[in-house]
Amino acid sequence: MTQVTIIGTGNMANAIGGLLADGGTDVAYISQADTGTAALEGEIVVLAVPYPAVDSILAAYGDQLDGKIVVDITNPLNFETFDSLTVPAGSSAAAEIQSKLPKARVLKAFNTTFAGTLVSKRIGDTATTVLIAGDDATAKKSLAAAVEAGGVSAIDAGSLSRAHELEAFGFLQLTLAAAEKITWTGGFAVIN
Amino acid sequence: MTQVTIIGTGNMANAIGGLLADGGTDVAYISQADTGTAALEGEIVVLAVPYPAVDSILAAYGDQLDGKIVVDITNPLNFETFDSLTVPAGSSAAAEIQSKLPKARVLKAFNTTFAGTLVSKRIGDTATTVLIAGDDATAKKSLAAAVEAGGVSAIDAGSLSRAHELEAFGFLQLTLAAAEKITWTGGFAVIN
Repeated sequence: MTQVTIIGTGNMANAIGGLLADGGTDVAYISQADTGTAALEGEIVVLAVPYPAVDSILAAYGDQLDGKIVVDITNPLNFETFDSLTVPAGSSAAAEIQSKLPKARVLKAFNTTFAGTLVSKRIGDTATTVLIAGDDATAKKSLAAAVEAGGVSAIDAGSLSRAHELEAFGFLQLTLAAAEKITWTGGFAVIN
Repeated sequence: MTQVTIIGTGNMANAIGGLLADGGTDVAYISQADTGTAALEGEIVVLAVPYPAVDSILAAYGDQLDGKIVVDITNPLNFETFDSLTVPAGSSAAAEIQSKLPKARVLKAFNTTFAGTLVSKRIGDTATTVLIAGDDATAKKSLAAAVEAGGVSAIDAGSLSRAHELEAFGFLQLTLAAAEKITWTGGFAVIN
């Protein structure tokens, strides 16, 4: 059975954990307060926290993350202006995390799906699709299999450098929802 | 009646022109060969050409574009590598065009919709949505009205700085279609 540790206990943590549990994955949660003391179970660790909280998690676990599949779900927005990202132009939160964890297999995923669409597993009449970017093909397949077992679609969106585009996509989608041009139960669906 | 000049005669030019004509817009086409000699009719000019062809059009029309609504539809990909854009990191083709045409009202639009979805007006069971970014609210409303009259949806996606995110969105969608992970008649639909 796939084992996943989710760090974080917010809406996205619960939505991702619920989805993976529906697919038979064994899901353990670690609250931000327990970060560093609670053990990391399984091969996959999901950082389901806001981007500014990531660094303290990386510091707390250090080389315990070596070899793990580390899933970055963040949209590193400047939430004061809602007009820019806080990562360097052309880069991504995922690339920054990978540079800090050179021995981990970092994936970008879940940042393009609102929590509500992971819970309902639908965007309108369409199955929700999780877009996954990363440089390790095996890691992407493992996460995609766990996601699909939960009842939504998954697409390999390319190398970790595509995290830049996924974060732009997530940023755009958040600004449209915040401006009430789309709903938090909707957004961008992938249609074949 | 709204009058639009479309520069370009390719798939996207014809798809956009057909959509606007369906909505009662008077559409004139200028081939790249006639650029500079054919007159620009109406308030809206759509640059329906690949990004590398834009500069020669701007040079040919010069101050005839002052005051016009200039619609940039490009996805400025490096088509050799399919792995990056050719505009500076953090910028966009639309921002580059606006800097070269300070007196025009530049909009980014149509770069997130494949030609097929403008012709069918559907992505799967959902109406196609044209995302429009720009700094001139009146210009965005004019284009949105013409697009909606043609039978698809339009959303104001924010200021021209959001063109960066629209181009990332378009880039991602193109890479997924080229990799046969989505179809050219599908893609990202906007669901409410």
